[in-house]
Amino acid sequence: MKRLINPCVLSFYLIFISHGDMLREERILSGIPGLDELIGGGFPKRSVTLISGGPGSGKTIFSLQMLISGAERFGEAGVYATLIEAPEELRLDASSFGWNIESLEKAGRLALLDLRPSRFLELKSEERTDSFFSWVWRNIRFKVEEIKAKRIAIDSLNVLSAHFRDEHQFRQKIMSLIEALHEFPECVSLLVFEQITLERTIEEFLTDGVIILHYIPVKNGMLRAIQILKMRRTRHSENFHPLHITCEGIRINPKETVALF
Amino acid sequence: MKRLINPCVLSFYLIFISHGDMLREERILSGIPGLDELIGGGFPKRSVTLISGGPGSGKTIFSLQMLISGAERFGEAGVYATLIEAPEELRLDASSFGWNIESLEKAGRLALLDLRPSRFLELKSEERTDSFFSWVWRNIRFKVEEIKAKRIAIDSLNVLSAHFRDEHQFRQKIMSLIEALHEFPECVSLLVFEQITLERTIEEFLTDGVIILHYIPVKNGMLRAIQILKMRRTRHSENFHPLHITCEGIRINPKETVALF
Amino acid sequence: MKRLINPCVLSFYLIFISHGDMLREERILSGIPGLDELIGGGFPKRSVTLISGGPGSGKTIFSLQMLISGAERFGEAGVYATLIEAPEELRLDASSFGWNIESLEKAGRLALLDLRPSRFLELKSEERTDSFFSWVWRNIRFKVEEIKAKRIAIDSLNVLSAHFRDEHQFRQKIMSLIEALHEFPECVSLLVFEQITLERTIEEFLTDGVIILHYIPVKNGMLRAIQILKMRRTRHSENFHPLHITCEGIRINPKETVALF
Amino acid sequence: MKRLINPCVLSFYLIFISHGDMLREERILSGIPGLDELIGGGFPKRSVTLISGGPGSGKTIFSLQMLISGAERFGEAGVYATLIEAPEELRLDASSFGWNIESLEKAGRLALLDLRPSRFLELKSEERTDSFFSWVWRNIRFKVEEIKAKRIAIDSLNVLSAHFRDEHQFRQKIMSLIEALHEFPECVSLLVFEQITLERTIEEFLTDGVIILHYIPVKNGMLRAIQILKMRRTRHSENFHPLHITCEGIRINPKETVALF
Amino acid sequence: MKRLINPCVLSFYLIFISHGDMLREERILSGIPGLDELIGGGFPKRSVTLISGGPGSGKTIFSLQMLISGAERFGEAGVYATLIEAPEELRLDASSFGWNIESLEKAGRLALLDLRPSRFLELKSEERTDSFFSWVWRNIRFKVEEIKAKRIAIDSLNVLSAHFRDEHQFRQKIMSLIEALHEFPECVSLLVFEQITLERTIEEFLTDGVIILHYIPVKNGMLRAIQILKMRRTRHSENFHPLHITCEGIRINPKETVALF
Amino acid sequence: MKRLINPCVLSFYLIFISHGDMLREERILSGIPGLDELIGGGFPKRSVTLISGGPGSGKTIFSLQMLISGAERFGEAGVYATLIEAPEELRLDASSFGWNIESLEKAGRLALLDLRPSRFLELKSEERTDSFFSWVWRNIRFKVEEIKAKRIAIDSLNVLSAHFRDEHQFRQKIMSLIEALHEFPECVSLLVFEQITLERTIEEFLTDGVIILHYIPVKNGMLRAIQILKMRRTRHSENFHPLHITCEGIRINPKETVALF
Repeated sequence: MKRLINPCVLSFYLIFISHGDMLREERILSGIPGLDELIGGGFPKRSVTLISGGPGSGKTIFSLQMLISGAERFGEAGVYATLIEAPEELRLDASSFGWNIESLEKAGRLALLDLRPSRFLELKSEERTDSFFSWVWRNIRFKVEEIKAKRIAIDSLNVLSAHFRDEHQFRQKIMSLIEALHEFPECVSLLVFEQITLERTIEEFLTDGVIILHYIPVKNGMLRAIQILKMRRTRHSENFHPLHITCEGIRINPKETVALF
Repeated sequence: MKRLINPCVLSFYLIFISHGDMLREERILSGIPGLDELIGGGFPKRSVTLISGGPGSGKTIFSLQMLISGAERFGEAGVYATLIEAPEELRLDASSFGWNIESLEKAGRLALLDLRPSRFLELKSEERTDSFFSWVWRNIRFKVEEIKAKRIAIDSLNVLSAHFRDEHQFRQKIMSLIEALHEFPECVSLLVFEQITLERTIEEFLTDGVIILHYIPVKNGMLRAIQILKMRRTRHSENFHPLHITCEGIRINPKETVALF
Repeated sequence: MKRLINPCVLSFYLIFISHGDMLREERILSGIPGLDELIGGGFPKRSVTLISGGPGSGKTIFSLQMLISGAERFGEAGVYATLIEAPEELRLDASSFGWNIESLEKAGRLALLDLRPSRFLELKSEERTDSFFSWVWRNIRFKVEEIKAKRIAIDSLNVLSAHFRDEHQFRQKIMSLIEALHEFPECVSLLVFEQITLERTIEEFLTDGVIILHYIPVKNGMLRAIQILKMRRTRHSENFHPLHITCEGIRINPKETVALF
Repeated sequence: MKRLINPCVLSFYLIFISHGDMLREERILSGIPGLDELIGGGFPKRSVTLISGGPGSGKTIFSLQMLISGAERFGEAGVYATLIEAPEELRLDASSFGWNIESLEKAGRLALLDLRPSRFLELKSEERTDSFFSWVWRNIRFKVEEIKAKRIAIDSLNVLSAHFRDEHQFRQKIMSLIEALHEFPECVSLLVFEQITLERTIEEFLTDGVIILHYIPVKNGMLRAIQILKMRRTRHSENFHPLHITCEGIRINPKETVALF
Repeated sequence: MKRLINPCVLSFYLIFISHGDMLREERILSGIPGLDELIGGGFPKRSVTLISGGPGSGKTIFSLQMLISGAERFGEAGVYATLIEAPEELRLDASSFGWNIESLEKAGRLALLDLRPSRFLELKSEERTDSFFSWVWRNIRFKVEEIKAKRIAIDSLNVLSAHFRDEHQFRQKIMSLIEALHEFPECVSLLVFEQITLERTIEEFLTDGVIILHYIPVKNGMLRAIQILKMRRTRHSENFHPLHITCEGIRINPKETVALF
Repeated sequence: MKRLINPCVLSFYLIFISHGDMLREERILSGIPGLDELIGGGFPKRSVTLISGGPGSGKTIFSLQMLISGAERFGEAGVYATLIEAPEELRLDASSFGWNIESLEKAGRLALLDLRPSRFLELKSEERTDSFFSWVWRNIRFKVEEIKAKRIAIDSLNVLSAHFRDEHQFRQKIMSLIEALHEFPECVSLLVFEQITLERTIEEFLTDGVIILHYIPVKNGMLRAIQILKMRRTRHSENFHPLHITCEGIRINPKETVALF
């Protein structure tokens, strides 16, 4: 089923072209080839977006690429809070796409924050005055203010949730985290989320945007596609678009759609 | 499968046309293009309707649009209780559709109540004499009486439920909330509800009406449709109708139907 | 798949025609157009039937119509115990079908019992000597005896169940409620039940009869049908029959069947 | 898919014809038209069989018919333990098929035991020296010995299970009940079981036999069929056979099969 | 889909034919017609195999037949631990296939151990010094050593599991049971397991082999098939093969396959 | 659906051929025929990969084969920690594929660590100073350092998880295990995981790689295929490739794909 382009998206896009300066102020370009066309020209400022997908769907690459592009091409600093992988592994991951994280770190345009639970446990007791959740947030906030970051990624929410036995309590913490991220008016934030079940989750309705990286079995292999499930203040594409992980990172084809169901 | 218009709905609609004044008294026009034809000319007065749908289905836009239309076109004041988004974000959301919330606020015809849990937690202890639920309700009731509101929206029930560990207790609170809303005989109330699972929920059978905003995957993208699942005292459409989110808000096509299953 | 009429049902029906007087003693006519032909000429006296269906399936209309028909056409008094809607709302619901409840109430042929949980909570403590469940039952029994009712409706079981944290305890209460209803040898009782999940429920095997009001999505809209799942001492139809909600209430077509699965 | 008769069943049946006397000793004829041909000539003596099906599937009729046939045609006494319906209701149920229970009761060939939980609760405390489960079993055993019953029906297991909060404890009680029924070497026992979920249940693997009364939706209505899922020491049919509830009770067509899946 | 015979299985089989003596040492012939060809010539010595299937799938017949064949045809003694049926019932079950258990028992080549929970509960308290699980194992070990058994069957695991409220504890007991069975280097053990749900179970990954007896509905009746899901040190068939329960027990057709899904 | 080879994988592979020395440093060849082509030339050093599959899918053979190949063909020592099977059984398993574990053990190039829970329970109390989990890890670490192992296999995670009642606690232990394995910079680690349910599991998102051994029913039998679900720093195949268990172990056909869904 080939759908025509929604004329609203089109007109919005044309406005974007002609009144670029005004709108660019309100939008942050992702730098991921093909993505910004799907979301009305970029992420809304101050928005918090969930990046959701299964294992191997490319969530970490997506988030890294957006921060590195911001730093390299738009001069916008980024803070990448890693709760799973060690920073040196992320540097290796990036180098396999030809991205040089270290030079950006040295230039003060990218910060990899090592916020793995094991780091927290190694703290001396006098340094460990608050909970893991608060420690994570305090470190992010400090670094964002220090380097005047415009892009934030937290990878992943699942590690945070693993520290709450009580889902009810976790939900309230996530609400307050999102409110806190909204306090940085110039920033765009990505929350990486590993989809473990097929059910909709509470996280999806708390964030301003939800981007799903589909990675699903079809006949003889796996198919990759991106879907903008929701994005506030944005006439976004409602189709599934093919996504490729190439030697140079993620590339989206905004003009094509694929059938997932 | 093309269905003929149910003659009952038709006759009801004709009566509505001819005896408009009498019936208009009993109905509140939504102002959402195409909707009122599906629900016998408007929402029944004093009714409480659940607006249900998944993330990105347009529940907040739907509710905002109905209150703004009421204020702008019918001179009916509205109270929008927001439990998730900050008021300034809602104003931005609205302006992306060309709606000017601030001018309506100044005119006393629309009130955005900031009832986010974080506001409650910031209260001084002497002000926080009752539970979150009671605080929410007390604020809504006060504002409805103050501006003589005819339209109420609570966005969303899920935040209220997140404050109850015990589903049994929550259910009884919802019953009493609906009874309390029924005490405003001139009002129509919308309860926004984020569908997280596919199961029917207790909320659906307690309210007078249930409107479902479908937003479901079909082949290459997402399809939007509206369904009036139930509405008391109303011969409503039993079909699925296409819904579009345009540059000017939601628009429904009451003469067309779409296949969802 | 068009099925022939089961000859047993047919012969039963013929007997009913010819030996009407004798059999009519054992049967209570529903008064819902088309229904009695499906259940061997009417509900068995002393039977308790579950009226089951999802939101918007017409359970309340069904039950109201049966009590109003009994009062208007057969001179049989009815008690409608409402646990969700306020009596004034039910009167409005009824008037939208052209039914005048108030005149029947004045004539002592219909009683609307307001047994909402909020009424129970408003009782003074000296009046509230027993549990909600007992209070509901005591009020029903008293009114049934007072007006010599032949038809009883309890709308809905779900509100009763909401007052039991423990499903085990609820099940035993329902057993005893059904036994108590059996003590009225001349009555027919309807228990309204909102189907929330698709699973079979304990209620279905405790009652003498189960009538399901199907209201299910098909292609472009919703389809209505009635099914007599079980009815003791009755050769009932085993097909799905179309059900319409018209300007004058429910109408069933006993000669047609529809495919649901 | 038409299947040929399994030659083993056939030869078994032929042996049954020729060596009838010897084998009849080991088999108890059900008396339900068409059933005995499916189970190698009748139920094995001392066997305990689960009669399983959903609401309206005919479990109670099946069990009543087998006990009444035994009493009327084979002179074998039966004990029907009813845990749901009152005895007078069962008598009415039976009379709608032309069966006269009362005359069999007077002749001492059929006993209806009223073992509803409410009867147990009405006992004086000095009579209520043991649990509900023990009381049920004690009454059954006493009556079986008194009238030298050869057929026992317990309707239904679900009521027994409703008295155990702990499934683990219930399972052990059922094991011991089945062992106790095995102590009557000349008897055949039927345990009526209302299938509430589609999952296999523990009861199915503890009994010697499992008979399923299918009552499932197909296109425009419900289809009835019987399946012998298992029966120890018996070459039984492995097909689904049509079952009809006629004016004279259940009738099975052992020569036809129907497609259920 | 007809599959060619895996050449590896074939060559293995040919080796088996030519170097029979050497390999026979490592394999224990099941004696069930058609089975040994599917499992590389027989069960590996010292292996523990789960025999899994639903009610009526033939698990008890399978296990009995393997022990009786071993005793009659290969002179290998067997211990059958029965936790559900009484020994006299098993003897009757066997005689319906023409198998004479008693003569084998007298010859000391087959032992039926009555390990039903009721036997355990009847023990005097001084004899009941350990748990049910330990008592079961102690009896099996003693008998295996006494008659120098080469074949062991435990029917069924489900009864053992019913004695553990805690699944975690049960799992550890099963691990230790399997280790203990491995201590008999010349034996092959069968653990009968009644599949209640469709989910894979912990038992399947702890045993050396898993054989599934499929008994599933197809169109008008039930279909029987055997599947060797896993067997260590064995190139086994990976197909579904038809299984018949004949007058002489189970018979498998190793050259044919059937479609189950 | 035949897919063309992803040009990125191809170019990567070509680079691998021409600049072998440099890259080989970063990759560890599996030695499983056909696998290395699917994962960009081998496993990344320091990576931890989950080997996931159902019973009988070949997980143990896969892991054994990779360690034995490493020892035999590349001179890289391996540590195989077995938590289910006894070492002597593994030696037998291996010999059925013609692999001689004992000679590799003697040469100090392969160590089978017997870490079954029963071994832990046999320890004297003074030796059992820490938990089972710590004991397992301490033994592995000691042996890896002793023989300078480059390949580690832990078979299986499920046994570790069986020692945690609390899933939350288990998850944190697994995180720390993976971090600890990352401390061996020259090693590749395999974590064997028995898939019991179809749901995605927490383990899948914590490891650097996930390889799924599919073993699923198709029509008349079972189908084997391998899928590289994820592998960090690697352009891996996204297709399902046929896997065969031959007389000489696992063999993968990287040029063919099969349809699984």
